[in-house]
Parts: sequence; C-alpha cells; structure tokens
Amino acid sequence: MSEIVVIGAGLVGHVASRLLARKEFTVVAVDRDPERLKLLDGFEGLRTVEADATDPRTMESLAENAKVFILALPGNLGRIGLEAAVSTGTPVVDISFSPEDSRELDTLAKELQVPVVVDCGVAPGISNMCVGYAASQLATTEDVLILAGGIPSVRRLPFEYVAAFSPGDVIEEYTRDARMRLGGSLMARPALSDVELVHFDEIGTLEAFDTDGLRTLLETIDAPNMREKTLRYPGHAALMRTLRDAGFFDKAPISVGRGDDAISVSPHDVTLALFEKDTRLGPKETELVVLRVEVSGTGADGMRVMHRFDLLERTSYGVTAMARTTAAPCALVAARIARGEWPAGQAGVIPPEVLAAQPGVFDEIRRGLEHHAIVLSYSMKPLPE
Amino acid sequence: MSEIVVIGAGLVGHVASRLLARKEFTVVAVDRDPERLKLLDGFEGLRTVEADATDPRTMESLAENAKVFILALPGNLGRIGLEAAVSTGTPVVDISFSPEDSRELDTLAKELQVPVVVDCGVAPGISNMCVGYAASQLATTEDVLILAGGIPSVRRLPFEYVAAFSPGDVIEEYTRDARMRLGGSLMARPALSDVELVHFDEIGTLEAFDTDGLRTLLETIDAPNMREKTLRYPGHAALMRTLRDAGFFDKAPISVGRGDDAISVSPHDVTLALFEKDTRLGPKETELVVLRVEVSGTGADGMRVMHRFDLLERTSYGVTAMARTTAAPCALVAARIARGEWPAGQAGVIPPEVLAAQPGVFDEIRRGLEHHAIVLSYSMKPLPE
Repeated sequence: MSEIVVIGAGLVGHVASRLLARKEFTVVAVDRDPERLKLLDGFEGLRTVEADATDPRTMESLAENAKVFILALPGNLGRIGLEAAVSTGTPVVDISFSPEDSRELDTLAKELQVPVVVDCGVAPGISNMCVGYAASQLATTEDVLILAGGIPSVRRLPFEYVAAFSPGDVIEEYTRDARMRLGGSLMARPALSDVELVHFDEIGTLEAFDTDGLRTLLETIDAPNMREKTLRYPGHAALMRTLRDAGFFDKAPISVGRGDDAISVSPHDVTLALFEKDTRLGPKETELVVLRVEVSGTGADGMRVMHRFDLLERTSYGVTAMARTTAAPCALVAARIARGEWPAGQAGVIPPEVLAAQPGVFDEIRRGLEHHAIVLSYSMKPLPE
Repeated sequence: MSEIVVIGAGLVGHVASRLLARKEFTVVAVDRDPERLKLLDGFEGLRTVEADATDPRTMESLAENAKVFILALPGNLGRIGLEAAVSTGTPVVDISFSPEDSRELDTLAKELQVPVVVDCGVAPGISNMCVGYAASQLATTEDVLILAGGIPSVRRLPFEYVAAFSPGDVIEEYTRDARMRLGGSLMARPALSDVELVHFDEIGTLEAFDTDGLRTLLETIDAPNMREKTLRYPGHAALMRTLRDAGFFDKAPISVGRGDDAISVSPHDVTLALFEKDTRLGPKETELVVLRVEVSGTGADGMRVMHRFDLLERTSYGVTAMARTTAAPCALVAARIARGEWPAGQAGVIPPEVLAAQPGVFDEIRRGLEHHAIVLSYSMKPLPE
C-alpha cells in the first residue's frame, strides 16, 4: 500500500492528512510538535512521526519511502523538505506559501523526472486552476483578476480578521511588493495599495487591495492585464498600512526602554505575538473563504467572453474554511499523483494552472472539490465587442 | 535677586525658563541631560544645573534656595520634586501632567503655608482658568465642555499626530479612563470613547473624544454636566483604540520569539519607541494648539448665558505652540508668586480654576498671555430660556 507523507500537522496539514487517510493510502503525518500529532491519533490509515522539517537528513529518509510528499508548513520552512523530496525522486505537492521562486528547482526535477506541483492550496491554488482552465479555453487572454480572502464570519475588533493561516505569513503578505501585469508591463506596487470596495451578495461589501499572489501566473499566462487582490472587511488595509508604515512590521531590532534597562527587540516579533493572540479564531467563531476569479478574452470563434469562478466556504464541523479549501485541492492532486493518473508524464515544477489546462483535468478538479463539499461555481458570459 | 528653579529643560521647561529669564529673576534650569541644558547656554539671567529629578536630596537642596519651584517633567517624574518643594516651604507651580491626585499634599502644604499651583499649563491649565472664571460669574453652572488638542498643521501619515509633549503621556491619556460628570453623577468611560466631529473655521473638521482631563475641576466646580475631550484629526481615535485593544499599549511584558530566542518585552515600550520616531515634529513641520471652553449657566440676574473661550496657536519662531501655551501660564503664575502678588494669602494645593476665580485675576491672566502673544478670545452670549 502506497504511503503519502504530509510534512506539517498544523491547520492545513491536519486536514490534508485526514482527507487522504479516507482513501486507499497510508498517510504519515510529520510534525515537530507532539501536541499537534496527538490530534491525529486514532484515525485509520494514518500514523504520526515526530520530526523537524528543517533537518535535511530526516526529510530525505522520509521522502525515500513516500509515493508523494506533501509540504504544509509556514512559508519560511518548506524549502528543505522540497529539496529533499526532489533529490530522492519523490513527487511533491506544496501548499507552503514560500516567498522564494520555486522554479529554481525546475531543472533538477526535470532531470530526475519528478513532478513538483507548487502553490496547490486555495489562492494560490484553486485560483491558478481557474485561470489556467479559462486561458486554455481562450484564443487570447486579456484580463485576469483574482480576489481572494479569509475573514471571520462576524466582524470582531480590533482587527476584524482571523488568521486562518500562519500570522507571520499574513504580515509577510502585507509587506512584500505586489507584482502584477498592467497594459502588458510587469509592475510592482506596495502591498495594501489600490483599495477598492467589492460587493458580495451573501456577505456584504468587502475591500480589495493589492497583494503578491500571482506568482507563477506571471510567467505561465500570457495576458496583458493580470492582478490579484486580497479581500478583507473595509478599513483593514488602512489599519495595516498604518502599522507597517509606523514600523510595527519591521524585522530589524530597535532599542526599547532607557539606560541600563534598554533591550533590543524586533517590532515585527512583538506585533506577531499580539496578532497571534488577537487574530486567533475563538471557540465559538467561524470564518469564511471568498474567492472570485474573472478571466476575459477572445475565444477561437472571435467572441469576447468572461469566465467567472466563485467560491464561498464557511467553517463547518469545526474545520476552518481556509484549512478545508487549502487542504482539499492538495489532497486531490496528491491522490491522483499517487495513483499514477496525473500529471500525465510531466516533470519539473508544475504550477496548478498548467495542470488544470490539460484536457479534462479542471472538470475532475471541480468534481473532486465537490466530493469534499467545496462548491466552485463557474459561468461564462459574452462581453460587448 | 530672587531665584526661580525650573526642573526639567524639555519642550516646556526650556520655554518657561526663557520666558522667566526675561524678567527680574534669576532662573536656574535643571535637567539630567547636559544636551538639553546646552540649548539654554548664553541666555542672560539664566544658569543651568545638571541634576536628577528623582533624587529627593538634590531636589530639596535646590528648593531651599528657590523663591518658586517650577516642575516641568514627564507625568511620572514630578512627584519627588513636588514633595521636596513643599517640605522645604517653597511655593510650586506644576505643569507635569501627573496621574496621581496631588490633593494628597494639600494638608501638608496648608500646614507649612505653601501655595502649590498644579496643572498650570494649557489643558489642564488655561482650560481650568476659563472654567473657574466663568463659574465665578454665574449663580449656577450647568454645563462645562472643554475641547483641547495639539495637532500637526499638516496631516502626515501614519498617525496624523505630533507629540508636542511626552509621547508616554499621550499613551497614558489614551489608556486611563476618562472621568466626567453627567446629569449630576460622576462617571468614568474608557478613553477614546464617544467620538464626534467638531468643525473649526480656521482648521477644518476635527474629531473629539473622551480623555481624562477634568482632574481637579470635578471637585472644585459644582456643575451637573462636565466633560473634557481631546481633539485630533478624524480617524485617530479608532486607530489608537485598535492599538490599545490589540495590546500595543500594555505595559506588562509578553513573551516574544520562540524557543531559546524568546525574550520578555513590554509592548508599550516598543510602541513608545516607534511613537517617538513617528510623532516627532520634523524640521520643516509646524503644529497647532486648539482649545475651546464652553461654560453655560444662569447669572445672578436669572439670565441663561454661555461663556465661550477660544485659543488657536501655531508654532512660531521655532517654538511649538504646545510648549509656548503650556509654558506661558506657568511662567506668568510663577512670576506673580515670586513677586508676592499671588495667590493672596492662599496656601495648599491651588488648582488654576481657584486662582482664576479671584477678582481681577482672570483679566490679568488674559493680559499676561497676550504679552506672550497668546490670544485667548472670550465671548458671552444669551441662551434661550
């Protein structure tokens, strides 16, 4: 029986392990924190291993026995596992939001004939799949817009936000410049720029602002206009911008206190500690994930059309919508790889949009998501000439 | 020649020393920081002493030779100097915004026949004088409203605020509950509550919110409704409330960082360090002080009237409006005490409103302020029955 190794048993890794353990695989859930592993005790088809993801030797020995290697770690920790898997010839599905360009590994992975599916969560992830599929249906792609966010179901001060993934990655997202393509040119704007209000019938008016979420799409999709924005309750961007501009996200230590009592501390670390407290989902709180993808262009028949995808998921049965919508595409793709069905002979770094552009794959993804009770609605409408 | 000792040569102490050195006194300016004292070098009638305000012995020996003792220190440091002066029988004028109730000292000061004029700045200070005077003109006082604030002339992100006095005291002001009287009852509301917009023709629309500025007025003035609010550019209160509620003003240390790298740090101290950087008045920036006092009631003739006082001062000749409007009433009162003119035989803790209620004193204060180019406009208008 083939083994799927899941590195990281946090919010997302936990759910991915459980989704896969229901199938025909043995799942090995790995974390350095025994408390997290304990939560996975007693599930059939699942065993746990306490280990450190930053140790290359451990990662390699885990990868050697695996049919597929899933990386579900905070953004700064996925790299070592990724390298260990590729060097041992093990296919990888990555949902760690890594700030580095994972395409560096492309050459090695191609040499060793290893498929590495990166950014395989919700956004990036499902968002990329939507864009890849829509672009594959168009002769020329013109405009790509991705709106994505995880927010609490009910607004709660001070931040009106719950960190459905690692709070450190959220700060990173508000700090890193947002790359986009406008009028055919690659541009970068500061994160939290260009705030606009967007209405959603079921949840009300949200605000959308620039973040750096396009990643591989900037290279794989040929469209003159391409932009990703993060969704939050109105007012959040201004507040986060104030914190950022005032220095609360600065990693460089500053001197705090006076005279002999002065100590050196990173404002970022203090803010992170307060964010971890204030943005934690309370026991009675629920959150939701909103995703809207719009891709416009001209079809082979010369007609201008817009492909539109919408996803709205809520916490259910104690599992956050963010964990579920991130873990589900990952588990789905990992299972297909373990069965040898995907990615149909491809090797190297494979972004989700490339996978989803293959004939028939996107329909299977939508069906697979629906199997996990995730509804990705899809429509196409003609645009004026 | 009589000697006036000014403890603290910061923003306010510096200006108070210079204003008094122009008169018939020798001024002794005291600070622990030689850099600050250097800025006072070369002024006629002024000498400097490097000393620590928290050392009781030093404070006592300085007080013994003084005709008047002025305290111009951050809020948490004035106490020792105040006690030293009273115990040596030296009259005090205090502009340190001390959170403790200085009326404790009242008994001792009365015993030793020492006058101690507290809160003798702009607000508290000039604001109290306006209320004391207006109430002395009324048979019954009904409503007292004080609106006061120091803001930059031009709005600048991130905070649209410049700390014209100690940034630590500003945080304290946003943290301490605001005491007020409403419908005859003493109440306390969280600072930053009850935000409302108030328009000023010369500077535009500001926001006003509850802070704890009434202090002695709550005991000395018999009025059923009495409230003080701080003025800022709109949006400031919500931002500060977010920071406060998220824990950024908490003094208790929290654990920051992970594992062996974890350190214990007070979020308040980190915020203070960032505030000191971000709210410092830039070399080309100017600020302004806005004060409006409205006192309504019924006169001896049975007519209902409102007394209204307005002050609007800007940075001039490199001296901030906050330093000038705080130092001027203090210097004015200190000079009258040194000359033996005020407070006309009174001893004990004398709040400014009590001083200003004495016949003729308020007119002299207005003339004295005008001598320092500070215009306190005053009008009275009838109210509907």
